[in-house]
Amino acid sequence: MKHLLSSHDLSVDEIVGILDVADHMAEINTRSLPKVPALRGKTIASVFFEDSTRTRLSFETAAKRLSADVMTFMASSSSLNKGESLRDTIETLSAMGVDAMVIRHKSSGVPLTMTQWTDAVVINAGDGWHQHPTQGLLDAYTVTREFGTKDSLSGRSIAIVGDIKHSRVARSNIDIFRRLGAHVVVVAPPALLPKNIESWGVEVRNTIDDVVGEVDALYMLRMQLERMDSSIVPKLTEYCALYSLTPERAARMGSGAILMHPGPINRGVELIVDPTDVPGSRILKQVTNGVNVRMAVLFTLLGSGATTVLQQGGES
Amino acid sequence: MKHLLSSHDLSVDEIVGILDVADHMAEINTRSLPKVPALRGKTIASVFFEDSTRTRLSFETAAKRLSADVMTFMASSSSLNKGESLRDTIETLSAMGVDAMVIRHKSSGVPLTMTQWTDAVVINAGDGWHQHPTQGLLDAYTVTREFGTKDSLSGRSIAIVGDIKHSRVARSNIDIFRRLGAHVVVVAPPALLPKNIESWGVEVRNTIDDVVGEVDALYMLRMQLERMDSSIVPKLTEYCALYSLTPERAARMGSGAILMHPGPINRGVELIVDPTDVPGSRILKQVTNGVNVRMAVLFTLLGSGATTVLQQGGES
Amino acid sequence: MKHLLSSHDLSVDEIVGILDVADHMAEINTRSLPKVPALRGKTIASVFFEDSTRTRLSFETAAKRLSADVMTFMASSSSLNKGESLRDTIETLSAMGVDAMVIRHKSSGVPLTMTQWTDAVVINAGDGWHQHPTQGLLDAYTVTREFGTKDSLSGRSIAIVGDIKHSRVARSNIDIFRRLGAHVVVVAPPALLPKNIESWGVEVRNTIDDVVGEVDALYMLRMQLERMDSSIVPKLTEYCALYSLTPERAARMGSGAILMHPGPINRGVELIVDPTDVPGSRILKQVTNGVNVRMAVLFTLLGSGATTVLQQGGES
Repeated sequence: MKHLLSSHDLSVDEIVGILDVADHMAEINTRSLPKVPALRGKTIASVFFEDSTRTRLSFETAAKRLSADVMTFMASSSSLNKGESLRDTIETLSAMGVDAMVIRHKSSGVPLTMTQWTDAVVINAGDGWHQHPTQGLLDAYTVTREFGTKDSLSGRSIAIVGDIKHSRVARSNIDIFRRLGAHVVVVAPPALLPKNIESWGVEVRNTIDDVVGEVDALYMLRMQLERMDSSIVPKLTEYCALYSLTPERAARMGSGAILMHPGPINRGVELIVDPTDVPGSRILKQVTNGVNVRMAVLFTLLGSGATTVLQQGGES
Repeated sequence: MKHLLSSHDLSVDEIVGILDVADHMAEINTRSLPKVPALRGKTIASVFFEDSTRTRLSFETAAKRLSADVMTFMASSSSLNKGESLRDTIETLSAMGVDAMVIRHKSSGVPLTMTQWTDAVVINAGDGWHQHPTQGLLDAYTVTREFGTKDSLSGRSIAIVGDIKHSRVARSNIDIFRRLGAHVVVVAPPALLPKNIESWGVEVRNTIDDVVGEVDALYMLRMQLERMDSSIVPKLTEYCALYSLTPERAARMGSGAILMHPGPINRGVELIVDPTDVPGSRILKQVTNGVNVRMAVLFTLLGSGATTVLQQGGES
Repeated sequence: MKHLLSSHDLSVDEIVGILDVADHMAEINTRSLPKVPALRGKTIASVFFEDSTRTRLSFETAAKRLSADVMTFMASSSSLNKGESLRDTIETLSAMGVDAMVIRHKSSGVPLTMTQWTDAVVINAGDGWHQHPTQGLLDAYTVTREFGTKDSLSGRSIAIVGDIKHSRVARSNIDIFRRLGAHVVVVAPPALLPKNIESWGVEVRNTIDDVVGEVDALYMLRMQLERMDSSIVPKLTEYCALYSLTPERAARMGSGAILMHPGPINRGVELIVDPTDVPGSRILKQVTNGVNVRMAVLFTLLGSGATTVLQQGGES
C-alpha cells in the first residue's frame, strides 16, 4: 500500500490493520502530552482545491501529533489562478521535497492521476462523487469501537440516508461497511440514487420511517442545498417529510442505536432534531476518531517502524 | 480561573500575578533562543470570526514560544459559509482535541456562550463592544513597567481619547487601570460616550486639550472610519479639531508622559502626528509586551507547573 | 552582509559562499530526517503583499528544515485594508520579535525602505521589476552544479528569452550569471527590452531561433498575459512565432544544453512544448534547488555558527 486513493484499494486485513493502529493513536491522544516523534522530519502537504476547513484541520492536527511538518496549499491563493496546470502545481510541490500530499479536488480521479506526477504518498481527502476513504475508515472505526466488534460488523445493520448519488462519503462507507460484514440500507429519493444501485449490494428503502427503529446505526448524509434548487430534486419541504431526522423519529431509534453524520451539519435540513438531544449521537465522536484514524493512515503510509515507536512519549 | 472572558473575572491579585509571569516571559524573549517547552504537546486554536492579523499573530507567536502547536481557523474559509451553526463549529474543533481556543467575534458574549460547548480553555480576543481582556492586561503591563510601579497605578492619571462607546478596548482598560489605582479620564464627543458613563468611575472631559498636558499616559483609541459616515458622529474635520493628537498637542505632553494606541493606527485621523516623532510613544512597546502578556496568559491557564519551568531553555 | 536586497549587494565571493552552503543543504535534504536545529528559536516572517504561493512555500519549507518558527503575513488579510501604513505594519511585525522578514511587494525598493523600520534581517523575495536575488542564486546554483563548474560559468552561454523589460528575474539572473563569467544573450521583442539594454553587458538577439541551437542554457521567462492585451506588445500569435519554445525548437537544443524557467509556467505561451518531453529540462530541479539555496541564505544571514553545525542530525 503506497497511496490511499479509494476504499477499494484496501483489503479487509488492511482496513482492520489501520483501525488497530488507530487504537494506539487514541491512547496517545489521551496522554497529557499527546505527541510522538514518529514522523519527525517528514513534510506533509495539504493540497486543497476545494475548501474544507474541517477535513484539512483534522489531517493537519494528525500530522502535528506525529511531529511531521505541515505545508498548506489552497488553490484559491495559488498559481492556478495564473494559468498554471494542475500537473505543474503538483510537480512543483513535489520538487520542494514533500513526503505526502493530502488532496481534495472537485473532480473524481484527480488523486489517482496525481500519482503519475509525484513520488510522494498521495492520500485522497475527497474527489468529486468518487471516494473519501479516510471518512470510510473513521466511520468504520466509530461503529466497530462503539459496538465492541473490532474486526467485524457482522450482524449489524446501518442505514445511510440522503443524497447517495452525489456522495463520495456514501461510496467509501458502503464499501467498507459491507466488507466488514454489515447489512447496509440506503434511503433516498429516486432522483438521488445512482442508476446502478442494484449492483452495490445494499437494500433500498423509501423513507427514513422504514428504517429508523430497526437499524443499529443511522448515518445521515449532508444535503447539498444547491441541489435543492435544481428541478430533479424534490422541494425542501417534501424532502424533509420523508428523509429528515426529526425529534419524533429520533425518539424511535433503538436503544443502543447510534446517529452519525460526516459534517458539516445542515441544521433544519437533514437534521431537524438537535443532535445533542439524541443520546445515541456519535457525531462528535466521529470528529475525535477522525484525528485518530488519520494519524493511523499517515503512520501506516509514512512511518518506518513498527507501532512500538508509538510507545515513546514526551519527545516532540 | 479556567477561562479569560472579561477583565471583570480577574481579581487584582490575579491581574498582578499575570503581569509578574509576563516579566518571566519578557526575560525569555531576550534570550538568543526565545523558546521554552512549557506547553509542548498542547494545541491552541485561533478561532477568528473577525479579521485581525495583528492580534492573531501575537497570540500565535506567544503559543509557539511556549512550544505549543497552533491551529488557525478563520471564519471566511469555514463551513459557516455552508450554514453550519456556531455551536457545531466550536464543538467540532473541540472534538479534534484542542486545549485552548482564542476567539474573536463581532458579537458580545460569544466567548462566554462558547464555554458551554467545549471543555477547552476559552480566551476572549475581542467580542463586539464588550471586552478585550488581554489588551487591558498588556496595557497595564506597559504602564506599570514604564512607571516602575509594579503592582499599582496609584497616583497616576490616564486619559483615554476617542470612541469610548463602541470600544471593547476602553471597557477592558478602564476596568483594569482603575482597579490598579489609576485616575482615568475619558475624552470623547457626547455621541461616542456610553449613556451610563457616570457609573464607570471615570472623569469626563470635552477635548484632548483639557488633558494632554496633565496626564501620565495618553491612550488614543482607533477611530472606526465607518462610523464617521453616520449622522450621529461629527464630521472628520470637526472630530480632529477636538480629539486628534497633532504635533502641537504632542509637544505639550508632560516629560515622562507616554503615548499609547492599541493599533492599527488610522494615520490622519486619531493620530495626525507621526508617533515616531513623539519621544513618549510606547506604541511599539505595547506590541512587544503583547507577546509577553499573551505568553503569560496561556501559561497561567494551560501550564501545569510553577514558573520555575520557565528557567529551562534551549529545548524546543 | 546583513540583508539580501539585491544581487548587486553580493560580491562574487559571497555568491560562491552561499552556493557552497547550499551544497550542505542539498545533502541534508537527502537524509531520511531532512532537518537540522541550526535556526531553532528563530522566527522568520513571510510578508507577502503580492500573492506567490510557490516562493512563499519554498522559503517556509527552507525555514522549517532549519527548525525556525514561521509566521505568515499576507496583505489581503491584513490591517492594510483598514488604512494602516506599510511602515506601521512592518514596525508592528518587528516588535513581535521577528528575526527575519521575507518580503514580496509590487513596488521596487520596498525591501530596502523596510530596513529603516526594523532590526530584523530583510530578504527580498521579489520587488516590482527590480530584483529577485534568491531566484538569481538558485539559478546560478542550478547551472554551476549542472555543468560541474562550481565557482564559475566561464565559457558558458545562457540565453534569457521573453519580457526582459518588466522582469526582476532577468535583472537578478543577468547580474549573477555575468559576474560568474557567463556570456548572456537576451532575446525579446524590442518593446520588451529595457531602453538601456546596451549598458547591461549582454548580447541582444531577435528570435529564439538565433540562439536555441547554440547556448548551454535556455532560460524562458514567464510571459505576463496581462501585458499581451496592451498595445505596445505584439499579439500572442506573433509573439509565439518568434519567442516561444516549440517541440521543433526544443529538438534543436544542443546535447547537454538545459532548459530553465522560474515558474509558474504559462503553457501555450512561452512554452508550447511540454517540458517533460525535453530531456534537458531542469525546471523541477530549479524548484528543488530553491529550497537548498533559501536554506543557505537563511543560514548565512541568521545562523550563528560555522557550517559544522549542519552535520548534526536527528534533532528537530
